[in-house]
Amino acid sequence: MNPTDRVRAAYTRLARGERPEAWITLRPEHDVLADAARVEARLAAGEHLPLAGRLVGVKDNIDVASLPTTAGCRAYAYRPTRTAPAVQRLVDAGALILGKTNLDQFATGLVGTRSPYGAVRDVRDPARVAGGSSSGSAVAVALGIADLAVGTDTAGSGRVPAAFQGIVGVKPTPGLVPTDGVVPACRSFDCVTVFARTITEAAQAVALMSDAAFPADAPLAAPPHPIVAVPDRADLGALSPQWLDAFEQAAKSLEANGARLRPIRLAPFLAAAKLLYDGGFLAERYAAVGAFIDSHPDEIDPTVRAVIGAARDIPAHALVADTERLARLRHEAMTAWGDADALLLPTAPSHPTIAEVAADPIGVNATLGTYTNFCNLFGLSAVAVPAGEAAGTNFGVQVVARGFADAVATDIAALLAGEAPIAVRDRGLPLLVVGAHLAGQPLNHQLTRVGGRLLRPARTAAHYRLHCLATDPPKPGLIRVATDGAAIEGELWQLPPAALGPFLAALPAPMVLGQVHLDDRSTVTGFLCEAIAVRDAPDITAYGGWRAYLASLPQPPRQGG
Amino acid sequence: MNPTDRVRAAYTRLARGERPEAWITLRPEHDVLADAARVEARLAAGEHLPLAGRLVGVKDNIDVASLPTTAGCRAYAYRPTRTAPAVQRLVDAGALILGKTNLDQFATGLVGTRSPYGAVRDVRDPARVAGGSSSGSAVAVALGIADLAVGTDTAGSGRVPAAFQGIVGVKPTPGLVPTDGVVPACRSFDCVTVFARTITEAAQAVALMSDAAFPADAPLAAPPHPIVAVPDRADLGALSPQWLDAFEQAAKSLEANGARLRPIRLAPFLAAAKLLYDGGFLAERYAAVGAFIDSHPDEIDPTVRAVIGAARDIPAHALVADTERLARLRHEAMTAWGDADALLLPTAPSHPTIAEVAADPIGVNATLGTYTNFCNLFGLSAVAVPAGEAAGTNFGVQVVARGFADAVATDIAALLAGEAPIAVRDRGLPLLVVGAHLAGQPLNHQLTRVGGRLLRPARTAAHYRLHCLATDPPKPGLIRVATDGAAIEGELWQLPPAALGPFLAALPAPMVLGQVHLDDRSTVTGFLCEAIAVRDAPDITAYGGWRAYLASLPQPPRQGG
Repeated sequence: MNPTDRVRAAYTRLARGERPEAWITLRPEHDVLADAARVEARLAAGEHLPLAGRLVGVKDNIDVASLPTTAGCRAYAYRPTRTAPAVQRLVDAGALILGKTNLDQFATGLVGTRSPYGAVRDVRDPARVAGGSSSGSAVAVALGIADLAVGTDTAGSGRVPAAFQGIVGVKPTPGLVPTDGVVPACRSFDCVTVFARTITEAAQAVALMSDAAFPADAPLAAPPHPIVAVPDRADLGALSPQWLDAFEQAAKSLEANGARLRPIRLAPFLAAAKLLYDGGFLAERYAAVGAFIDSHPDEIDPTVRAVIGAARDIPAHALVADTERLARLRHEAMTAWGDADALLLPTAPSHPTIAEVAADPIGVNATLGTYTNFCNLFGLSAVAVPAGEAAGTNFGVQVVARGFADAVATDIAALLAGEAPIAVRDRGLPLLVVGAHLAGQPLNHQLTRVGGRLLRPARTAAHYRLHCLATDPPKPGLIRVATDGAAIEGELWQLPPAALGPFLAALPAPMVLGQVHLDDRSTVTGFLCEAIAVRDAPDITAYGGWRAYLASLPQPPRQGG
Repeated sequence: MNPTDRVRAAYTRLARGERPEAWITLRPEHDVLADAARVEARLAAGEHLPLAGRLVGVKDNIDVASLPTTAGCRAYAYRPTRTAPAVQRLVDAGALILGKTNLDQFATGLVGTRSPYGAVRDVRDPARVAGGSSSGSAVAVALGIADLAVGTDTAGSGRVPAAFQGIVGVKPTPGLVPTDGVVPACRSFDCVTVFARTITEAAQAVALMSDAAFPADAPLAAPPHPIVAVPDRADLGALSPQWLDAFEQAAKSLEANGARLRPIRLAPFLAAAKLLYDGGFLAERYAAVGAFIDSHPDEIDPTVRAVIGAARDIPAHALVADTERLARLRHEAMTAWGDADALLLPTAPSHPTIAEVAADPIGVNATLGTYTNFCNLFGLSAVAVPAGEAAGTNFGVQVVARGFADAVATDIAALLAGEAPIAVRDRGLPLLVVGAHLAGQPLNHQLTRVGGRLLRPARTAAHYRLHCLATDPPKPGLIRVATDGAAIEGELWQLPPAALGPFLAALPAPMVLGQVHLDDRSTVTGFLCEAIAVRDAPDITAYGGWRAYLASLPQPPRQGG
């Protein structure tokens, strides 16, 4: 479908009035059609628009120029003149904004019921909450009306509703996606997130929204057999027996797909999670909207008023003490984490009904953040993915990775979901390998352990010869020649920029790295070798590559992977 | 002098009783002599002890096992069982601890008078303050009794007394030297510092004390002609005319020694400086010692009690607001900073008398931090160095560099002081260059602009031949050969680990990088070239190196540097 048809289909669907409370502001169809026409004109002009015609819902605490930003509070509403940069980047990539979605007021909640625009109901079971605070965004995607929805996540607002609605929620490392134009909840820990029906779509949108703020050693991929830390039943007491089974099933699937599981105790993670709403950090919420709440008491959701208003009198030294406590817990948690690549957790411990939330609005809400609250406090990245159904509800898990290891989280989530590894925005340095560093060959781990990513098979231009060197392990030596050259098969990898130098420094003679010409006329850094080493080394150019040469040997060496 | 003789000389000098108020606890001479004997035994056993027999004073808010830590308050004193890791590393390197030095109580002050152990007097003029809070440490070094003294610096406590006492104070990037075993002042911004009479000695001690916590792209050196931002008179109004002249003279000297000066306005720096004592950050001081102060009101210096006690009732949302304000000011300041390598500032605006401080203890103290307070709030590194005398007092300036650019600050301070560049602890990757990247050659800037450091001239093993390639700019091609090889002159550089990969990725064919054998039998990463490129390139091996070859040309190319 072209963008115009997609818009028409969405508005036809919207006219059916399913979960209308998901939206606070829906744009007039003709406005969105006009945007669609502009996208079509850009496509016709040859522009590359990776999100051409994708329909987007934007959580109503994020600015979209000319639409009101309410943050779930009518009296707070203002009309911004500038779209938040994170959202603007989606629009620049061809996305079409349908409107602004409902949320727990001031993004304070994980339920989706704390809104004067209506409690957002679960898509499967209208008696249950949609999950929040990004309730409307998750429901718009789950219904299939929006392809993508932008949310925010401080405690778990971009993940809990994803779990309840059976969709994907990608929560990047704090600081990666700009929060300009977002009404702050707890500013130090606020993240802009994306909901979609596949990991690839969500991760692609997050990549488009991100600043180029990755540290130079941030991994580009998960290793082929990632180590995933998984809590045992002792730390999963909040789950129903059915959800506990579903969680263990998810862990087993991940293992079956290649992950190596390792037990972990969650004590420091769970203790930190409690700090978000029980201590000094609440003062950030008061600093953001406290003065407004104090001056508009009747316009505020009573639960939100109780939560944020209580933060007025927290002394600064208590916030300092909590900050120091958090640092200690983080140290403890990351020590327990060790060299694991990620942590697998349930996204939420239970899926309450609207009535249960109404009966105990603060208590039930607090429980929902058990497994999500700590992530932003610790500066981590996370991807929430569906993990089947249990007890008549969707069950979801999250893959939590270190800060700036977002690519590791999405790769492992893809491993669990059976999706292909997720291509990330180009931020590595290329490296052509032709021998022992090829995937599955003995030195390939030198690339994968530093976060290297296999981009694609590649072939040199027809100006090279390949020799079999007498090294241990055996390696081929690639040499550029003036005549009688051939094209040699290899693989194009990408390494984190900070990893290539140490790789080179550890590379023994006679291997060298320099520019290699490929058969597509591009040039990339790759393996060559000193000429002195090939003088007495058998010429194996005729095989066309190292793998073919190895296959030709009478007894091919049995090597891992 | 051997360690024992150094100790005896120091105690003879101490017996003269100059500025006895500099010390809170002096160790018995026989204890230090016993330590000296142990150091001599270690030396005799062949240990390498870079600080063998160096005499050290330790500020009395830093733990030394078995000596009381008072933080300048008798009632607070405790006897730690473990020496602070920062100090222990000096001891491990052969240093000898003389005792614990006086300070402004709880390191709260820049004057050195807020102590029940006596107001520490300036070494030149006993009517003036020594400067604080590391008053005793600075005086012990200025008198020549201690070779090194350990201090702390939150607002400027490791720099202001250095300026007043005419010595060097190195304040590393926050986080680089562990603060375990240090009584917190304002924990987020506390740094352990070193005083010495030369930059080299102070920087060496700081390097020994540091964790290996540098980011992989942290520079290893200042560039040969660093850009130094210098404020103009409009932002230096707090200086007397004589000190203003002295400051401008220092800037001129720095320029004469090779720096490129650039004007900068200090508004965001000065605004941030005020935040340290005027706002929410005071709550960190209350969190550290507030409960103790409240329960021991009569044991506390009245000014310290007034400053810290006032922080009890600061609301947490005010601290949040100040934290956000600081982030905005930092952004503004670093925008003004631009691509400068460092900032040159007076260390303090004036040198008050003890009577002036007594008349207005809070006001005079606050003025002293005008040019130092912002550094730790912004996460910067700084080196305070003497810059002559003016109006009968020592005048001092500080070179302020970015966080983790500590090597840049020390190099530029050395440029100003006329000392040699400071060797830093080995944390880069080696690169042997033999041609256009040699110092002064056309591509050398590719090394210096990423923080590369020239380690030394170097020569290959006698297994290479050098060719003159037809590249632009002209480059030599180094090839390892089986016979008829020769040794080739080059230079051994070191690059930040994260810089080598991007350097390689940008390197055009036919240049390659690989292991090169040196004449000392070591092997380092270095420049080689593809054999195909030297087939028709003149062999210039006989010149022994690229510089000799260039010198032999009828019209040597005139190239920068």
